[in-house]
Amino acid sequence: MDILEASQELERQGHSIIPFSLGEPDFQAPECVKEACLQAIRDNKTKYTHSQGLVELREAIAEHYFEKYRAKIHPDQIIVTPGTSPAFFLIFSTLLEKGDSVILPNPHYPCDANFVEFLGGNPLFVPVREEEGYQWNPDRVKKRISKKTRAVFITSPSNPTGVVLEKEIIQKMCRLKIPVVSDELYHGLVYEGQEHSVLEFTNEAFVVNGFSKAYAMTGFRLGYLIAPKKYIRPLQKIQQNFIISANSFVQYAGIAALKEAGPDLERMRGEFKRRRDLMLKGLLSLGFQINYTPQGAFYFFVKIGHLSKNSLELAYDMLQKAHVAVTPGIDFGSEGEGHLRFSYAVSVEKIEEGMERLGKYLA
Amino acid sequence: MDILEASQELERQGHSIIPFSLGEPDFQAPECVKEACLQAIRDNKTKYTHSQGLVELREAIAEHYFEKYRAKIHPDQIIVTPGTSPAFFLIFSTLLEKGDSVILPNPHYPCDANFVEFLGGNPLFVPVREEEGYQWNPDRVKKRISKKTRAVFITSPSNPTGVVLEKEIIQKMCRLKIPVVSDELYHGLVYEGQEHSVLEFTNEAFVVNGFSKAYAMTGFRLGYLIAPKKYIRPLQKIQQNFIISANSFVQYAGIAALKEAGPDLERMRGEFKRRRDLMLKGLLSLGFQINYTPQGAFYFFVKIGHLSKNSLELAYDMLQKAHVAVTPGIDFGSEGEGHLRFSYAVSVEKIEEGMERLGKYLA
Repeated sequence: MDILEASQELERQGHSIIPFSLGEPDFQAPECVKEACLQAIRDNKTKYTHSQGLVELREAIAEHYFEKYRAKIHPDQIIVTPGTSPAFFLIFSTLLEKGDSVILPNPHYPCDANFVEFLGGNPLFVPVREEEGYQWNPDRVKKRISKKTRAVFITSPSNPTGVVLEKEIIQKMCRLKIPVVSDELYHGLVYEGQEHSVLEFTNEAFVVNGFSKAYAMTGFRLGYLIAPKKYIRPLQKIQQNFIISANSFVQYAGIAALKEAGPDLERMRGEFKRRRDLMLKGLLSLGFQINYTPQGAFYFFVKIGHLSKNSLELAYDMLQKAHVAVTPGIDFGSEGEGHLRFSYAVSVEKIEEGMERLGKYLA
Repeated sequence: MDILEASQELERQGHSIIPFSLGEPDFQAPECVKEACLQAIRDNKTKYTHSQGLVELREAIAEHYFEKYRAKIHPDQIIVTPGTSPAFFLIFSTLLEKGDSVILPNPHYPCDANFVEFLGGNPLFVPVREEEGYQWNPDRVKKRISKKTRAVFITSPSNPTGVVLEKEIIQKMCRLKIPVVSDELYHGLVYEGQEHSVLEFTNEAFVVNGFSKAYAMTGFRLGYLIAPKKYIRPLQKIQQNFIISANSFVQYAGIAALKEAGPDLERMRGEFKRRRDLMLKGLLSLGFQINYTPQGAFYFFVKIGHLSKNSLELAYDMLQKAHVAVTPGIDFGSEGEGHLRFSYAVSVEKIEEGMERLGKYLA
């Protein structure tokens, strides 16, 4: 937040800032998605929906998980939410009592630990390390499990590292006899190899996914969770009290995204790949070492040991002197210190300009 | 939920049910509101907004509260939420620690007590009684206040009674030195007298309002809270973690509602008044006694002592035998037992048909 506010202040003063700090795609939502939303409004689809979401959308989600992952889920196992954040609220509200624990990676997306703590749980952090390709180490996870552990929270592709978890590792995590909560929001944005859903390997898992990243639909606020059937009624009760239902016409946009926006997703993925390759080349030529393969999402997590020990100070200095905004690694937990997160959710032109500015700054 | 499910089952069997149980207007959203939403989508206003909501919408809300109530609020005191339910989540998350208490009316909207309990608080119920016109008794409230009391939760017009709280009573509630949380969602739907905002009398209050009821925008999921400035930062943190922001284009619909939909609101209010008068006449002619003035919202709360002691049983029997769905009073707390809630968010034709069916049922 400090960097964001300082960045906005510089922009108010008339400076142009290169935002390698962005967490949302700069693409517009696909035309077919917008058209479906427009048509639903014109058709007065503007009332409360079923608290779990439109059956047609839940059927499309179930079909998507079958077509892509061969995972068999029933539409009744799905709850549609206004973005993915409320889905985590529902899940951890249902799973946690005070004093329970959830295993999270370190580094991790900052809100993930907040969800757990807010709902009375203790986040237990297991380091994921660059020298292990930022993959989880299931043996290290196993050692942290106690009687109080209610879930293991994985994210693949990962924010902040962009790493896609290997199939075998997800499989092993699914055999730990603790429910896996799997954040699959960056699925679809994978440039090498193949992402795997936790539902390929187990039914005793909670999946959270949505439309914000792969379909560039951040402002639509549309996400969903998939849960084992026995948890649906308690999850639905939280939804009925605190959410009522997701927006009605946005749910039609979600149906269009799944059924019609495949070519748009491919176009955006191709462009992200191009940007990724360009930024990787740029960062390496600036002397940063990147010893792992960031195959997905739109982030690099870059070591800064040769420049500074303090990621917030370095990010702040880069912003002030080079007018390039990045996210300090410390935001993502103690293991994130000594890193910066670079996002390539910006145009090729901005990546080139940003690299040039950083070249001068580092020189 | 039992009545709703039984009602849906009867509809699946081909029966037509008169839904005097509805909690949402049967009107379509105003054309100007839909058009503003369509235009925002066409203009690609589909990204995350400021976590507190668009400045233009918050300015329009502040202007609305000044024009209608002469309340001076700053747009920075407002947080825009996906419906009003999440606004209560934000407020009670911020106000309550485990063991704190909140004073609520009995009868009350069922979720209100759930919000408090879910967030670790104890709901303390103060009866509001038909023989007092369902107005609060501030002296009775005062006696319930302890060191642990963090808020008094008022709703005017009330769900389930439709009563508009008198100005003097709201004033007295504002002098109790406990923050008032004021649900003003049914403001605009008042057919006799004048509704008052708590912000006319104090700045130390939390207001929750939205667009669902007065503007018939339930499926848009758009609400907001107004809070004293010192609470905004903690409220915003919860929003940033669990909501991120409200839908972007729906916020433009909210601006249009406040600036352009005045004539639509008047048209719908006129129609609601017509229905209210018709339903009141019908209920009286069926032998129900209504000894208070339901001036707002779209509900009557009707005593059933001459028919049954069990509101759930009576509602169930009416549904099965007369195919009329109503809401059992017990849903609204212990003081609600012995009553049924009748909603007039249905057409004049349906009110007439429903009254005829009930006439036969009671005969």
